[in-house]
Parts: sequence; structure tokens; C-alpha cells
Amino acid sequence: MAVYTEINDEELAEFVEGYDIGGVRSCKGIAEGVENSNYLLVTQSGPFILTLYEKRVDPSDLPFFLGLMNHLAERGVLCPTAVVDKRGETLGEIAGRPAAIITFLDGVWPRRPRLEHCTATGKALAQLHLAAIDLDLRRDNRLSVAGWADLADSIGRDADRVSAGLSDEIAGELAFLESNWPVDLPTGIIHADLFPDNVFFLGEELSGVIDFYFACNDMLAYDLAICINAWCFEPDGALNVTKSKGLIEGYGSARSLTPREVKSLPILSRGAALRFLLTRINDWLSVPPGALVTPKDPAEYLGKLRFHRQAQDGEAYGIRI
Amino acid sequence: MAVYTEINDEELAEFVEGYDIGGVRSCKGIAEGVENSNYLLVTQSGPFILTLYEKRVDPSDLPFFLGLMNHLAERGVLCPTAVVDKRGETLGEIAGRPAAIITFLDGVWPRRPRLEHCTATGKALAQLHLAAIDLDLRRDNRLSVAGWADLADSIGRDADRVSAGLSDEIAGELAFLESNWPVDLPTGIIHADLFPDNVFFLGEELSGVIDFYFACNDMLAYDLAICINAWCFEPDGALNVTKSKGLIEGYGSARSLTPREVKSLPILSRGAALRFLLTRINDWLSVPPGALVTPKDPAEYLGKLRFHRQAQDGEAYGIRI
Repeated sequence: MAVYTEINDEELAEFVEGYDIGGVRSCKGIAEGVENSNYLLVTQSGPFILTLYEKRVDPSDLPFFLGLMNHLAERGVLCPTAVVDKRGETLGEIAGRPAAIITFLDGVWPRRPRLEHCTATGKALAQLHLAAIDLDLRRDNRLSVAGWADLADSIGRDADRVSAGLSDEIAGELAFLESNWPVDLPTGIIHADLFPDNVFFLGEELSGVIDFYFACNDMLAYDLAICINAWCFEPDGALNVTKSKGLIEGYGSARSLTPREVKSLPILSRGAALRFLLTRINDWLSVPPGALVTPKDPAEYLGKLRFHRQAQDGEAYGIRI
Repeated sequence: MAVYTEINDEELAEFVEGYDIGGVRSCKGIAEGVENSNYLLVTQSGPFILTLYEKRVDPSDLPFFLGLMNHLAERGVLCPTAVVDKRGETLGEIAGRPAAIITFLDGVWPRRPRLEHCTATGKALAQLHLAAIDLDLRRDNRLSVAGWADLADSIGRDADRVSAGLSDEIAGELAFLESNWPVDLPTGIIHADLFPDNVFFLGEELSGVIDFYFACNDMLAYDLAICINAWCFEPDGALNVTKSKGLIEGYGSARSLTPREVKSLPILSRGAALRFLLTRINDWLSVPPGALVTPKDPAEYLGKLRFHRQAQDGEAYGIRI
């Protein structure tokens, strides 16, 4: 749950006056976003999201994130946009933090994703990849193989507190991925965090994609591998092949996967599982004892990682080339 | 900050179908309310607050709280109302909790209350008292003198961990209040928690009062004493007499205080300060070490209590009879 920066009502009124969206009607902190403080701001023009970027976000990345959202929306991707203020800027400052006013996106994220959610998400992911092709902004993925190695180093033997023998298993996995990580697959801008809570639906219809604050340049199929991990496993830990097939076919309906991409799905999914395993271990270890916040269970991603390790090719996910 | 009960999107859609407010457009947990989970629910009819009543609330009190809000609103008090569902009920159930859909109230609460906020709040408090007179519902104040004694008992010597000698000071204060607490002042339904975060303004205009979940039957002037504590002290701990005078005069502009009520303001304010001192100590002592939640500082109310103890009559708050 987000930490909230307190905003004074007077500075809020002044900040909102910098935009052509009418006066403040209401502003309430909302329980969404882990890296940032988010407020549901209602003005005379309607609802918006006011986002204050907290310390974990590098301010020099913000023009990339905001520029990406506005670029995608211009090309028809269903996503929020950063509102341009009277000076022509999307990035402002309030309460000592960089801040932006983001358009409000209707929809509710699916708590128990079904096949149709997976299919629609796959298609939206491919549309996002295609729409971003001509964007003249770039951001390296700091959470790819080199970043995982740094994280694994800093966690060290503490991983064994999560599960006996885990630090050795991570080291072995990392060595394999460092040697075998694909380098010649199609690349572009990826979302990199397209979990169910970042995809909104109105009834059966996908209404939009949010939270571009991990977006970066990387292999497009790696983004699909993140979604396989995030969308296609059941609560008992088993892959639902119907869902992964639906997700991948949804993706393929908008952008054809190359045979090499399909063949690489197991290793890309292993990398994606390791990435979330490492960040969850890190979060899990950094929570003080007795805290009221329950971090997400790292073991979930250990199980997924082991599944992908025994996968041979796309067939493990229901896809034949 | 509130703990949130997770609501499944499917059960949410079904719950909202029970009302004549159109389909769900959006639903986000908001960081308001300590006792309950609150969501900003947007339907095709506009924004609402969806409140789930958590374990600290006694379900048998809910008809009183919801009935009070709707009664006050009918009589012109600016406050939210509980929406009546298709069955004619205001109280429903979702995610295993009692729940209500409450109308959305425009406005922002004043982070740094000024004189005009105090005056408007005093007037709104009196209007609330008058509007509630003919309500045929009743709820005892469990946080009056007997409740304070129970709380002080359960805290015991642990109060000395907050401040040396505090348990003796509380015992002495309690003995004084038990012997001298007024019994013959005008009574009625009071809000009992009218802090700045429960009063909304649009610009200079008071737009409404929220959070009736401590409302109960008690002395009307005790409610004003709670507001003196909540609104009229500066961050350095000193009473701002201009503000308390404004608050009391604002109250008097809608309902005349009796001379006995004015004379009783010091002891009522002592009681109010002790009430919040005790609940804050209780919250402070029950937070586990290392928790990320920072409870409010009990010392603030100890300072206020000591101020009221030396006050002789209404003049201490700027009021002469």
C-alpha cells in the first residue's frame, strides 16, 4: 500500500489552477500504486488521478513514462494520459514532489482472471508494443539479467530465510540465464508490469491499461512472459494452459510472434519468474518484524520458476508453431 | 489508515445491481476512515462512497448511523446520505461485511484551519444539533465518563510509558470529572468526532460534514468542547482564542448557548481532552514495535487537558456571558 504525501488544500487549489480543468471539487488518497502516492482528484471537469512521485522513482525517468502514455493514447491504445498544464508541461511539482495529473480511466481490474481477460490482455499488450515502435524515447531495463545479479548479490544468503537452499537455487538459475538469455529477439518498449491490477475491464471489455512506471526497452516476448507468470497460474500454483494459450493467441491476433520468440518462451518466463522472485524476496526481507503490511509471498514465484524450468518450448503454454 | 477488505469485481457488480444507480465504472479503495473500509465507487450515475463496516463497528449501531445521516440531510444539513436500494434498504452486505453506498460529498478538508473554517464549523454543528432533535433513534455514548474509566483501567500503569507520572495524572483527572461532570445541560444527538478531516469546504464555503460513526446521545455543549479541542489549538500547543471565540460564536449564531453551558465549557473541554488522550494512548500502546503505522501523539491531548484545567469559565475561550 502506498505511503501518502500529505497535500495542503491551499497548495492543491493553486496547483490545479495551473491546468485548464476547473476548480477542485474533491481529492482523496487512494490505495493504489506502491511506488507513488495517488489521489483521486475531482474537478469541475470530472475525475482525474493526481500522482506524486515518491523517492523510489528516479525523476529523470518521468519524461519517458509520461511521454510514453501520451504517445500510446494518441495511437489508440486504451490508457490514461498526462494532462498538459497551461505552460504546456505534463510534469509539475506539489508538496515538494514531482507530480502529474493523469486522466481517469473507467474500469475495474479482474480479481479472478478468466480466459477472456487473458485473451484481451494479450491483444492489448501486442497493440501497446506496436504503438510504441515509433516513440523517440528510450529507457534501459534496470531489472534485466544484470539487475537480477545485483539484487541476488545484495540478498545473498538471506534468501535461505525464505526457503532452505534458495540462495543456491537462485545462483544456479542466474548462471544459467546469464549464459543462455536470448539476445536476438525483436525489441521495443515493453510495459514490464502488466499484472491483473494494471488492466481494467468494464464487464467483458478491456477498458484500458495503467501504471507504466516500469516500462522500458527490452525484448517484446519478455513482456508476454511476464504476463504468463502474472495471469495464467491458478491459486494452487498450477499453470492453466487454456489461459496461457488464450493470452498468447490474443497477443498473436495483433502481432505475430516469430518462431524464435515462441521457442524462447520457457527461458523468458524463467527470467520473468526470477525477476519477481528476487524483488519479492527483497521486499519480504525489508519489512520490519511486527509491521502491519503483509508483503507478497515470494514462494509463489519460486513455484512458477520451477515450472518454467521443466518447460521445453511453446507447447508447455499450449502453443505449437 | 484503513484496512481494506478486498472486493471481488463480480460480487461488486452484483451488489451495485441491487441499487438504481447504473453499472460500475470504477471502484478504488481510499485512504479515509479508520474504523471502516471506504471505496470511491463511480457508477453511471456518478461518484459514491462504498463503506464496508469492519470489526470495530457494532452492526447493531448501523441503523442509527445511517438513519441519522438521512434524517439530517432531509432537514437541510449538508451531509452525505445512505442510498436506498431496490428493496428499500440502506444497509446491505458485500464480502462478508455489512455495507452501505453513501452519496459523494464535494469538498476538501482544511489542513490548516483558519478563523472562517472554525466559525462555519461551529454554525454547522449547531444546525446538526437542531436538525437531530426530532429523530426517534437513540445511541448511548460509550465513550463518556464510565467509558473513560474502563479505558483508563485497561491502560493502567502503561500510560507511564507515554509520559512519566501520566497514570496518576489520569486517575486524578478522572476522579475530578466523575464528581463534577455536568448532568443537567441540554442533551441531544451529537457528532462526537467533528475534527477538521470530517468537515469539507469548497473555497471558503462549508460544503458538508461526514463520518457519523461516533454519533450518540449526550450533552450538546460537549460536542462543542470536542471541537474546541480539535479546531482551536495551534501546532505549538497554545489555544488560539480568536478561533475558539469564532467557533463558539458560529455555534451561537444558529443555537443560543445557555449561561450554564458556557460556564461548563472548561470542564466539558477537560472531558473531551481526556477522552482523546485515552483513546490515543490506547492506540499508541497497541501498535507493534517496528510497525509502519504512526499513531497520533497522545502528548498533544495531555497539553490540551492541562490548558482546560486552568480555565475558569467561557472567558478562557473568548466568550463572556
